[in-house]
Amino acid sequence: MTERFTFTLQATDGKARRGEITMPRGTVRTPAFMPVGTAGTVKAMYLDQVRDLGSDIILGNVYHLMLRPGAERVARLGGLHEFARWPHPILTDSGGFQVMSLAALRKLDERGVTFKSHIDGTEYELTPERSIEIQHLLDSDIQMQLDECIRLPAERAEIERAMELSLRWAERSAKAFGDQPGKAMFGIVQGGDVPDLRIRSAERLAAMDLKGYSIGGLAVGEPQAVMLKTLEETLPVLPEHKPRYLMGVGTPDDLLQSVARGIDMFDCVMPTRAGRHGLAYSCFGKINLRNARHADDHRPLDEASACPAARDYSRAYLHHLVRCNEALGGMLLTWINLAYYQDLMAGMRAAIEAGRFADFKAETEAGWARGDIAPL
Amino acid sequence: MTERFTFTLQATDGKARRGEITMPRGTVRTPAFMPVGTAGTVKAMYLDQVRDLGSDIILGNVYHLMLRPGAERVARLGGLHEFARWPHPILTDSGGFQVMSLAALRKLDERGVTFKSHIDGTEYELTPERSIEIQHLLDSDIQMQLDECIRLPAERAEIERAMELSLRWAERSAKAFGDQPGKAMFGIVQGGDVPDLRIRSAERLAAMDLKGYSIGGLAVGEPQAVMLKTLEETLPVLPEHKPRYLMGVGTPDDLLQSVARGIDMFDCVMPTRAGRHGLAYSCFGKINLRNARHADDHRPLDEASACPAARDYSRAYLHHLVRCNEALGGMLLTWINLAYYQDLMAGMRAAIEAGRFADFKAETEAGWARGDIAPL
Repeated sequence: MTERFTFTLQATDGKARRGEITMPRGTVRTPAFMPVGTAGTVKAMYLDQVRDLGSDIILGNVYHLMLRPGAERVARLGGLHEFARWPHPILTDSGGFQVMSLAALRKLDERGVTFKSHIDGTEYELTPERSIEIQHLLDSDIQMQLDECIRLPAERAEIERAMELSLRWAERSAKAFGDQPGKAMFGIVQGGDVPDLRIRSAERLAAMDLKGYSIGGLAVGEPQAVMLKTLEETLPVLPEHKPRYLMGVGTPDDLLQSVARGIDMFDCVMPTRAGRHGLAYSCFGKINLRNARHADDHRPLDEASACPAARDYSRAYLHHLVRCNEALGGMLLTWINLAYYQDLMAGMRAAIEAGRFADFKAETEAGWARGDIAPL
Repeated sequence: MTERFTFTLQATDGKARRGEITMPRGTVRTPAFMPVGTAGTVKAMYLDQVRDLGSDIILGNVYHLMLRPGAERVARLGGLHEFARWPHPILTDSGGFQVMSLAALRKLDERGVTFKSHIDGTEYELTPERSIEIQHLLDSDIQMQLDECIRLPAERAEIERAMELSLRWAERSAKAFGDQPGKAMFGIVQGGDVPDLRIRSAERLAAMDLKGYSIGGLAVGEPQAVMLKTLEETLPVLPEHKPRYLMGVGTPDDLLQSVARGIDMFDCVMPTRAGRHGLAYSCFGKINLRNARHADDHRPLDEASACPAARDYSRAYLHHLVRCNEALGGMLLTWINLAYYQDLMAGMRAAIEAGRFADFKAETEAGWARGDIAPL
């Protein structure tokens, strides 16, 4: 196992990239989807299952973990890998995004952001330095700079102010991170939907020679076309031989379109959250198991799936569990969704290696367009 | 595999009995604990896990299943075993107990009970014949007569009326059940805490020569001593070579005390329900994982357990999951509790075989009395 953090591009097909990130804790095959393990648990899953689905890396949320159980406590308990029993790579966010979306009474200035916990009202301060310190206490393998992410649509001046602040915080984060062999800190490109701001952000971050680059501030309310156009404008500015992580994205279609444009890494709560709400992602598109059409359907969700939850249980049983709000419904559908996401990533990786990504993309889209199998 | 329903007593030790129930779908080693699979799912568990813990049989609730997904639907889908993916024996209750505890606007008369669903207000009728029909539609291996279970304390006249009604319903249930090779219908002894009524109920049921006998109407509010005294008075009246099932019981101590008095089968929601509320049953007694003493405790709940959830995860992590109301907390603690219950049953079976049940009982009680390991 390597002692260094490296990224190797193994193949490209159009703009789609097949790579590998190696770290002391393991290798991440890209394009990669990272299941979200908010509070040290991927909701309703055993992490053994998450691993068995082909997950090389999971994500932890600084905001949730700093509140409960607390970063210093996780450190005393041996770090997040030991705490959650996941010995493989972990990426953490900086906490900034959730502070903006969840916390109360936020006050943001040059120094950082103060906020009150949405759980018990305790006041916390999060600065670029403290965020990196927390991620270090968690023993995170890939850490994120603190940034300011704003919702779209927004005024150019506001987007520019937040982008410039995020660049200054990137400098402070990089300094706080220092030299951690085998680990990486990624800078985050901001700039909303304004092309020249995105390009300026990407250029300035590229000049810092960081180990990887995140694209932040997308999938925050804008149409998919805006997101994809932003990727097309931004990615050419980033260094080719560094991993590119599109934060918080997305639907299976978002993943397919973004890999086609050169993204290497994703995280999103969609597969896990949708699973807890009775929705399944599949090669037939999105399926609502709450729908009465499934009540008497003895067929599995997808008989060709390698996932036991999709292949072995009847749609009628899944429907019943969802209708009854039974825990097993969320467990099985989360399993189904993460399996589908990881199968999609594996399919994309294989297609890029084989130089047939465009065909794979077209076939996958055609499957979604055909929709679900006919009712019984 | 046998085609008949048989019960064989293999060993006794004092009044404790070690037996085997054989049925076409499998063998149940007694004394047996049956995890409760209310609506076709043992809450927060995969049934593979439930099986791996040593469960030979699970319980399904007629009341819940007749409401959702409906008995006729389950039958069309191949029966409850196929529906829930549990090919092993299933015992069903008659629905009567939950009608009394959950349903609205009940009306009980000689014919049966009418009630409105607690879910959507739909009116249903449950008679002894309909209950057996539902259990037949579910393809249940061990079926229960419909009975009237009343809460204690109650007046003698009321207890006697319900007991006599239950006896008449036992006759009707047995007639409705008819001859189902490989399956059984159990009668249910009622009579509250009144010795002569219990004895009359047991005698009259014994005279019907049923395949097994349940003790109902206990653990409904009375002290444990009353329950155990009732068992001591009732069990000698029942035929020795038929299985005896104590319904809805109980704590690990209830199980130990009741096996000592000659009970063969149990079901209870305690291990599953307690697990979802942060409580663990263990050889150290009952442990509340929500308690702050566990917050920094890197030790597992029970390092000697064969259950991965009890052996491999830290108390600090379990505490964190419970505090955050994470699904995995309920999943791990339910697993821990069912593992402990099944380990306790396996321990009792081995002890009876070895003629050292009294020693096993004393050792187990001493472990509970010592309590949890000292805080760090």
